[in-house]
Amino acid sequence: MSWLPGLITATPEEGFQLAIKLSRMAVKFTQPDDAVRSRLRKDYENNADSLTMASQVVAINFQTIAAANRYWNS
Amino acid sequence: MSWLPGLITATPEEGFQLAIKLSRMAVKFTQPDDAVRSRLRKDYENNADSLTMASQVVAINFQTIAAANRYWNS
Amino acid sequence: MSWLPGLITATPEEGFQLAIKLSRMAVKFTQPDDAVRSRLRKDYENNADSLTMASQVVAINFQTIAAANRYWNS
Amino acid sequence: MSWLPGLITATPEEGFQLAIKLSRMAVKFTQPDDAVRSRLRKDYENNADSLTMASQVVAINFQTIAAANRYWNS
Amino acid sequence: MSWLPGLITATPEEGFQLAIKLSRMAVKFTQPDDAVRSRLRKDYENNADSLTMASQVVAINFQTIAAANRYWNS
Amino acid sequence: MSWLPGLITATPEEGFQLAIKLSRMAVKFTQPDDAVRSRLRKDYENNADSLTMASQVVAINFQTIAAANRYWNS
Repeated sequence: MSWLPGLITATPEEGFQLAIKLSRMAVKFTQPDDAVRSRLRKDYENNADSLTMASQVVAINFQTIAAANRYWNS
Repeated sequence: MSWLPGLITATPEEGFQLAIKLSRMAVKFTQPDDAVRSRLRKDYENNADSLTMASQVVAINFQTIAAANRYWNS
Repeated sequence: MSWLPGLITATPEEGFQLAIKLSRMAVKFTQPDDAVRSRLRKDYENNADSLTMASQVVAINFQTIAAANRYWNS
Repeated sequence: MSWLPGLITATPEEGFQLAIKLSRMAVKFTQPDDAVRSRLRKDYENNADSLTMASQVVAINFQTIAAANRYWNS
Repeated sequence: MSWLPGLITATPEEGFQLAIKLSRMAVKFTQPDDAVRSRLRKDYENNADSLTMASQVVAINFQTIAAANRYWNS
Repeated sequence: MSWLPGLITATPEEGFQLAIKLSRMAVKFTQPDDAVRSRLRKDYENNADSLTMASQVVAINFQTIAAANRYWNS
């Protein structure tokens, strides 16, 4: 099964989680080594600007997911 | 109850607050440890560029919230 | 009265000023202490990259305001 | 007369120039002192990343201007 | 054959891969030397912020691809 | 003749090249000195993060070009 079968989610909260998933998958495709990513995790988890940057990527992906779901307004 | 039941807000000001909440929740999902986030708070609160970066994430999320609310124009 | 009663402005120039206001308010909500923000002001006011970053946040917020006003084209 | 009477331009090239103007005006509103801005100019003019950052702000503003002009397609 | 015959993909997952491809092609056009890009790879692959920045570019390109595909909703 | 007669291109690939051109022209308008830009080229060509930043500007401009061309879908 695809890791991304579609952009539609039942709720905004699930849409936000999907935005986080997209953000992480792009990192994973760039650095596929799980051990390296785990090691780097302590770097950005403990740095304020790194966390803000991560939040920004989620925000951009959430724009896409929210638009795909017509903002869950229907 | 969901922390994000929907993107619709009664007013633009509440929409801006929701954009701030989204920005912070993405950080929280990346760094769930409250103590660490509190410790990092003094870093970005006292750094001009960190605050500008935080403002940028809010701006991106506010684009999403404002579009979802059709800019509160109806 | 709300600091953000709506996104509609009479002119593009006022819309740009509102974009600046949104950018600053996000900073203010993150760092509410006026004294700290004043102290940090000399940092970003005298740094080229800091000013470019600030301009970027304004640009993002101006996208939102301009769209809300249908680009003042009507 | 307003420095920003409207977002409509006769040509895409003029639209791009307007995007540059918006980028600079946001800097000017943040740092109104001409002497300081002139002094900082040598910093970003001679730094590759600073120029890329400046180009990014122009790109964001050009999105707004291009959308306002319906991409000059009519 | 063009390296970019179109923006339409059969699935969201393929669309995400195309977004990654666009991100890399822009790097390639800026630095066409394969040996240099390979050498730089170890830099960003082992740096948390570099990976986040790379993820951000993918997110922006995915916005474009997703919109082109009307979010694969039809 | 204008360096930017319009945003319409025959193919997505040409649209991507136009996005690269826009990114470079904004740099050129900020730093018009060819000799300086050539000198700076070695800086960003050999730095992974600089290349990622450049790719990001292209991605933003490609959003504009792709929208102008209705994603080459017609």
